[in-house]
Amino acid sequence: MNQQPNLKIVIVGGVAGGASAATRARRMNEQAEIILLEKDADVSFANCGLPYHIGEEIPQRADLLVATAEFLRRRFRLDVRTCHEAIAIDREQKRVQVRRTDVLSGKEEATCWIDYDKLILAPGAAPIHPPLPGATASNVLTLRNLSDTDRIKALVDQQGSRRAVVVGAGYIGLEMVEQFVRRGLQTTLVELQPQVLPLLDPEMAQPIASEIEQQGVTVFLGQSVEQFLVDEDGSANAVVLSDGTQIETDLIVLGVGVRPNVTLASDAELPLGQTGGIATNAYMQTSDPDIYAVGDAAEYLYGPTGKRQRIALAGPANRAGRLAGQHAATGSSDPMSPVQGSSVVRVFGVNAAMTGITATQAKRLGLAARSTTIFAKHHAGYFPGAAMMSLKLLYAPETGKILGAQAVGGEGVDKRIDVIATAMHFEGTVRQLAGLDLCYAPPFGSAKDPIHMAAFAACNELDGIEAFVPSDADLIDKQIVDVRTSGEIERAPLAAATGAISIPVDELRDRIGELDASRPTVVSCAVGVRGHIAARILKQHGFEVANLSGGATARNQSIVGVPATP
Amino acid sequence: MNQQPNLKIVIVGGVAGGASAATRARRMNEQAEIILLEKDADVSFANCGLPYHIGEEIPQRADLLVATAEFLRRRFRLDVRTCHEAIAIDREQKRVQVRRTDVLSGKEEATCWIDYDKLILAPGAAPIHPPLPGATASNVLTLRNLSDTDRIKALVDQQGSRRAVVVGAGYIGLEMVEQFVRRGLQTTLVELQPQVLPLLDPEMAQPIASEIEQQGVTVFLGQSVEQFLVDEDGSANAVVLSDGTQIETDLIVLGVGVRPNVTLASDAELPLGQTGGIATNAYMQTSDPDIYAVGDAAEYLYGPTGKRQRIALAGPANRAGRLAGQHAATGSSDPMSPVQGSSVVRVFGVNAAMTGITATQAKRLGLAARSTTIFAKHHAGYFPGAAMMSLKLLYAPETGKILGAQAVGGEGVDKRIDVIATAMHFEGTVRQLAGLDLCYAPPFGSAKDPIHMAAFAACNELDGIEAFVPSDADLIDKQIVDVRTSGEIERAPLAAATGAISIPVDELRDRIGELDASRPTVVSCAVGVRGHIAARILKQHGFEVANLSGGATARNQSIVGVPATP
Repeated sequence: MNQQPNLKIVIVGGVAGGASAATRARRMNEQAEIILLEKDADVSFANCGLPYHIGEEIPQRADLLVATAEFLRRRFRLDVRTCHEAIAIDREQKRVQVRRTDVLSGKEEATCWIDYDKLILAPGAAPIHPPLPGATASNVLTLRNLSDTDRIKALVDQQGSRRAVVVGAGYIGLEMVEQFVRRGLQTTLVELQPQVLPLLDPEMAQPIASEIEQQGVTVFLGQSVEQFLVDEDGSANAVVLSDGTQIETDLIVLGVGVRPNVTLASDAELPLGQTGGIATNAYMQTSDPDIYAVGDAAEYLYGPTGKRQRIALAGPANRAGRLAGQHAATGSSDPMSPVQGSSVVRVFGVNAAMTGITATQAKRLGLAARSTTIFAKHHAGYFPGAAMMSLKLLYAPETGKILGAQAVGGEGVDKRIDVIATAMHFEGTVRQLAGLDLCYAPPFGSAKDPIHMAAFAACNELDGIEAFVPSDADLIDKQIVDVRTSGEIERAPLAAATGAISIPVDELRDRIGELDASRPTVVSCAVGVRGHIAARILKQHGFEVANLSGGATARNQSIVGVPATP
Repeated sequence: MNQQPNLKIVIVGGVAGGASAATRARRMNEQAEIILLEKDADVSFANCGLPYHIGEEIPQRADLLVATAEFLRRRFRLDVRTCHEAIAIDREQKRVQVRRTDVLSGKEEATCWIDYDKLILAPGAAPIHPPLPGATASNVLTLRNLSDTDRIKALVDQQGSRRAVVVGAGYIGLEMVEQFVRRGLQTTLVELQPQVLPLLDPEMAQPIASEIEQQGVTVFLGQSVEQFLVDEDGSANAVVLSDGTQIETDLIVLGVGVRPNVTLASDAELPLGQTGGIATNAYMQTSDPDIYAVGDAAEYLYGPTGKRQRIALAGPANRAGRLAGQHAATGSSDPMSPVQGSSVVRVFGVNAAMTGITATQAKRLGLAARSTTIFAKHHAGYFPGAAMMSLKLLYAPETGKILGAQAVGGEGVDKRIDVIATAMHFEGTVRQLAGLDLCYAPPFGSAKDPIHMAAFAACNELDGIEAFVPSDADLIDKQIVDVRTSGEIERAPLAAATGAISIPVDELRDRIGELDASRPTVVSCAVGVRGHIAARILKQHGFEVANLSGGATARNQSIVGVPATP
């Protein structure tokens, strides 16, 4: 292991990936000079925790300071320089130009050049602040760092603030909605796409939308913001949507995506990848082997497609930073593993987690993918407190290779997605998923876990034991058999299923003569379990039959959608 | 797929594996005759839920009836015969002899022979009821089925019952202890081994022992029961231990292991395996291809060793039953996957989960294994409610192949063990574990999950970056450096570490001259994180140094052990 004593490592960006790189580099090389440059006032803060401090779920601001500059200096002998922005790289002479700014005014105080042997870029991404009329008003804000947090929190803490509008229903947007409601603000959510959480398939996002509305939030979907109406005092007092709707508000937070900070790299002629992030190899090296890039500005190998792309998540940033720090300090490290894009969000009482690709993404990428959706309890149904979750599993036809999964429900969705992401790390198949030995006791799971149930369904499909139709399939011209009890059907009729024949599954064998065996048939129950049994009975009686994936629950979510909000 | 219409499948045992086999066989073959024989009065009950009904955490007894005989008849057209015990197999003529008993008296009513084409044995295991003096007393009970549950619960419900003794600190024993405390009984736990949960490594079981004692339970470890003192009315009133201790009680539950019900199979000359279970192949077929065996009486391929053994867990039983049912009904199925022995238990506020082998087992099996123990919060430390867990990871030297893991703590131990069990399914290494992409948001995990932290430590060890000594290592003759603050050391001095030198990690670089670089050195902190940093500093200054795995927390658990109870 090369531990060149006078090695000089410069790191640009002091949050997640940058801080991980710096501390790992130090542990690998006690003698190296390690300079950590951060353009803002704080390093290594809990960027994923910011919304929770605004909502006072994390009451102490100090708790967000995971590692202060002082701490990093003391424990790791890092030369931490906050309010130092790297503005140019001179690759020829291996030096980086740095502008020092005043912490309060942000004004430039000085610039200088710093030599490096190894340079690690972790500049992150900047929230997009669209140039709409009124968008520069003092209360139209984005959330990236502690200063942003302080600004938003100050507005909430003000006596006068009673209403908030959140633009963008992605992770940060939904977390802000939850925290604003927690603070008692009358909250409105606006999303350009026709669904919340556009990263998920539409029907999987539906329970999140319902939960948000049940919490008293007004939701506008499929609407863009046209402008912000601004007061004489320079603050916005209303948001105007594309359909003309005007929402009065005291505060606006934009969560409409991020733009990677790649100017420094591209100015230095370090190539960008197809998705606009800094191109890297397995050791997070850019085209210049002495320069690494990690975090939201870099590209990673994305497991489900085998292609490189940006993935703006804290987990990969930290792991990549750690590896790059070691590689820079010693010349070797393990390669960075493919990233599956695993993520999770809590939205009031509903959690949504996902990994890999969705059906929507598969379609966009032109990837052949099948899917199955199951509903199951998060632990033994007979044990008190069992919560229903929906789990959608995507897999390749023929091979059954797992491509992705989404889980929405109460407790335990993160566990199922982590297990599936792990199987994906090993390029596992749904058949292997069906054979996993997961731990079980009534308070924790079921002898047949939701993961097994989803994998069983997928294997049945691959083996020709059972065919599925997607929850939102067009059922016109099909013979539809609803095998629920009449009471269940009355309470929740199957959407878009005109002419459905009602035969409870337990009567199906005796009443099979009421059905036309020559017609393509679809069976449906509440969530798909009885449908499975019915499909097997009919198939063995010569029917061409498919089971409606996820039954009436999935279909009614898919088709009926979010009720329009006034 | 063979779907012989007049196929006759007989299944012996109507719980977990047997019920799964029967329902899968029906779904695969609508025409087959399927007979489910169960010697007791109930089929398909929630055997893992029984303790919770005694404690009234599951208030309704009916909730334990996952699928009644009537339900199985109606939905799956199964010929369910309760109170029918299979007593002999005539393999020549392919028939099984059955004794019908009276549900109340248990007396034989009739015997008959039933033909089969395929026979599936799922006879389970019987709790061991040791032939000690007084062991046949009316209130010395084991827990296997609903009748046992009713008997124990009736005793608890009695006005007079105020004290209970549980013998055996395995899963069922601990669950019973928890439920008895819940019911307000003064509870005593007796265990032959010197630790609770003997399946776990001793130091990992320690927090469970502490929790039980904090709940007011008296614990006797390393003691056997010699006899039960019996009243004139035929009920035991005291338990006598090997050291002469006499514990007065109103009720005794034995949870001292199970014996597989293999007589039926061995009488029919079906070979047993090395661990005394019915020998099976990948399709759960016995040596007779028309006879399958699943559940607690069968042997499975055990992942960590690649050998076949008994594994008395509900998950494998259900999955194996499903595959055997399909194979019996159609002649083909996926093979049964290796079982990792994943399991979990809740003991009041502490959960313990495990998969694969422990250090104790590795020693017994003569398997080379290294281990690392980390302590980490179950979700972001800055987010409210973060609970500490300990995670011990076992892996093969050289290859780093994962051999097992144990996790003990609050929420989320099941998640970590499921992820590691999944990696083990793919014969993964600790290096691959370090690269997993797990989902993260502050309420669910950390950007560097406890799994990553454990894997990082293991990789450091494999790469020669850091050496570890086990938490209970003999430190005599070592230079011990405790890098905690003096306040921490005062509150919890490092056990069995005479002469430890105190240098807080942040002062170590400046005070390195106080140490003797020529002496083998061990560093320790609270849980191992600062120890890691200190070890790296010293190693790069030429010290031969190791980090105490899990720091003072793990050592003090390992060495100080459970305080003796009076």
